[in-house]
Amino acid sequence: MELNFSKRVRNLKPSAIREIFKYAEMPEYIPFSAGNPAAEAFPAEEIGRISAEILRDSPVAALQYSTTEGYRPLREYLKEYMREKYGVGGNGDSLLITSGAQQTVDLVTKALVDPGDIVLCEDPSFIGSLNSFRSFEAVLLGIPMDEDGVNTERLESVLRENKNIKYFYTIPNFQNPSGITMSAEKRKKVYELCSAAGVLILEDNPYGDLRFRGEDIPAIKTLDTAGAVMYVGSFSKVVSPGIRVGYAIGPEALIHKMVVCKQGEDVHTNIWAQMICHRFMTECDYEAHLERLRGIYKHKAEVLEEAMRQYLAPKGISWSKFDGGLFAWCKLPEGVDMSDYVQQALEHKVCVVPGSAFMPNENEVSDCFRVNFSTPTDGQLRRGIEILGSI
Amino acid sequence: MELNFSKRVRNLKPSAIREIFKYAEMPEYIPFSAGNPAAEAFPAEEIGRISAEILRDSPVAALQYSTTEGYRPLREYLKEYMREKYGVGGNGDSLLITSGAQQTVDLVTKALVDPGDIVLCEDPSFIGSLNSFRSFEAVLLGIPMDEDGVNTERLESVLRENKNIKYFYTIPNFQNPSGITMSAEKRKKVYELCSAAGVLILEDNPYGDLRFRGEDIPAIKTLDTAGAVMYVGSFSKVVSPGIRVGYAIGPEALIHKMVVCKQGEDVHTNIWAQMICHRFMTECDYEAHLERLRGIYKHKAEVLEEAMRQYLAPKGISWSKFDGGLFAWCKLPEGVDMSDYVQQALEHKVCVVPGSAFMPNENEVSDCFRVNFSTPTDGQLRRGIEILGSI
Repeated sequence: MELNFSKRVRNLKPSAIREIFKYAEMPEYIPFSAGNPAAEAFPAEEIGRISAEILRDSPVAALQYSTTEGYRPLREYLKEYMREKYGVGGNGDSLLITSGAQQTVDLVTKALVDPGDIVLCEDPSFIGSLNSFRSFEAVLLGIPMDEDGVNTERLESVLRENKNIKYFYTIPNFQNPSGITMSAEKRKKVYELCSAAGVLILEDNPYGDLRFRGEDIPAIKTLDTAGAVMYVGSFSKVVSPGIRVGYAIGPEALIHKMVVCKQGEDVHTNIWAQMICHRFMTECDYEAHLERLRGIYKHKAEVLEEAMRQYLAPKGISWSKFDGGLFAWCKLPEGVDMSDYVQQALEHKVCVVPGSAFMPNENEVSDCFRVNFSTPTDGQLRRGIEILGSI
Repeated sequence: MELNFSKRVRNLKPSAIREIFKYAEMPEYIPFSAGNPAAEAFPAEEIGRISAEILRDSPVAALQYSTTEGYRPLREYLKEYMREKYGVGGNGDSLLITSGAQQTVDLVTKALVDPGDIVLCEDPSFIGSLNSFRSFEAVLLGIPMDEDGVNTERLESVLRENKNIKYFYTIPNFQNPSGITMSAEKRKKVYELCSAAGVLILEDNPYGDLRFRGEDIPAIKTLDTAGAVMYVGSFSKVVSPGIRVGYAIGPEALIHKMVVCKQGEDVHTNIWAQMICHRFMTECDYEAHLERLRGIYKHKAEVLEEAMRQYLAPKGISWSKFDGGLFAWCKLPEGVDMSDYVQQALEHKVCVVPGSAFMPNENEVSDCFRVNFSTPTDGQLRRGIEILGSI
């Protein structure tokens, strides 16, 4: 039988990253293309103990239907934790537990975007989010990135010249894919520009706890007095991505619509996983755990950077400064064709993601590629970069 | 800041069931309004053991990112199990693991429905699905139910008279809310009518394994030679709803679009939960477990029916025949106002769901209410029905 697909999905393509993933899963390939936490980063023993306790003490609560808004103790703890530790969330804000940060992005888009509405995003930006925006027929407008974050002059003119902008999507810390962190000055400017224009800021912060150099910069959400910022948090990079738990902190009216959409999408997030996140945060030494993760990624980043200085710099391949997160963003010298380069890397069994995958405008060309340093071993990092330098 | 919501969510309301849930959670209320499996139905001990083994033997696989399509061993096992045991799935079909059956319904709708497209459904039907259809601006057309399933004359005329029908949504076994099971003859007729009209059938079967009387009737999907049926399965009623695992078996081209949408919605379903479902099906005595569940619900249904015969029948309250599942559907005598009745029941601390919640047309009145018999204890079943008879 012939199926007549909806307009919104007719031109949707699977994420280029997930296609490249297929290679990255083969052990003979060096997986610079993934975005996976390091295998040694998982607190598997603690999770095992906590999980056994939950199933022993309250099996029905862990296995039964639960509420769409999320597990109440986790919601209440997170609200307080985020407010006390980071100044995130205040009067007029609600907190919703989602099935990973990706679901927050999806629900915000479902609740705000009509076909043809504009979504502003950093250029480049995270492909998973871009594809979610596209799936609701948003028109994506990319704002170029400087070394200290999004170009605010361009943001200002785009905000002035366009109607129907529904929100500005930003990953201010160790951005995926560029690794760039937005400066405190720019955060202030972005907040002023967007709130003055009545445009919501969707602040996605999956990597904020993974800073291994320099000082934390307060979230844009800490400046929010107007109810103009939806903050997105995630347990994927700090506890486990496989259990799919994230959260949204933002304006009550928007959270309310997202709850209704989530009822229809998956009823609620796996309740057992929510209980595990709650107990892990409250019963284990969560801060020591984060410190251990930062140590793991600092080491990996240093191995990568040493190899890049040795093998890539002499060939004219440069990279953006990064002080945390999981990614380095490399720029090829002029005249080198990026697709050709990435293809050759694949032939040498090294998987990197072509920069074009991260372009809000799918026809834009890119001379960059993304290198993930959390998944490969130290040896793979050195060997892989050596190969990339030799192409 | 004023938010400008998308057209699709502007008029969306939270599910009436979830509002009534708030009462059902209070221990002094008798919870006829829920749809929860019985507390004693959870195989908590086996799940505890399996979960501990998974985290001991393959912690990284259980906690790391996984593929959108689902955990390969579960997908392969389910494909074979569903084909061998039920004749569900064949050439041209794919299987996708989703975050509960609700997500399959959502993804099918996202992939097929443009605003204004028609979705056919049984009248009454499951409110969670109706709300998902509404969230994509589908126009819902309800087809009345007879004692042996949907009225096929009406289905035929609706199919003839309307364009832009994207699918017919049906719960053929122990339907939610009516408890009605579609006869084999009607399944054949429904398949013939829909496939001839080029209209997909979305066959939702969460309760099929919970038949405690009579003989199983083959799924509509077993008749599918034209790629005209998307079958929806779920672990919610047979293992655990809290862990949110369901699956879709249907035409490859549609599954492919659903995978792309799922990438943007939640990346993948909790992988640990998928591993648990796989091991539970393959390592425990799954058939004995299902038999035990049928025993639990048979007993509860009998307690309910005895009480209904004693307290409701004399007052002119009738109910549809049901041979499995979790629900009884009761009809008030003529002249009794349903909203008033349900409100009075609430005042007497008995929660039932008003029939109007299940109407495809939100303005339609109903003289019915739904009684769930899986959640209450035997004592609550008897006392609750006695109260309902006394109003």
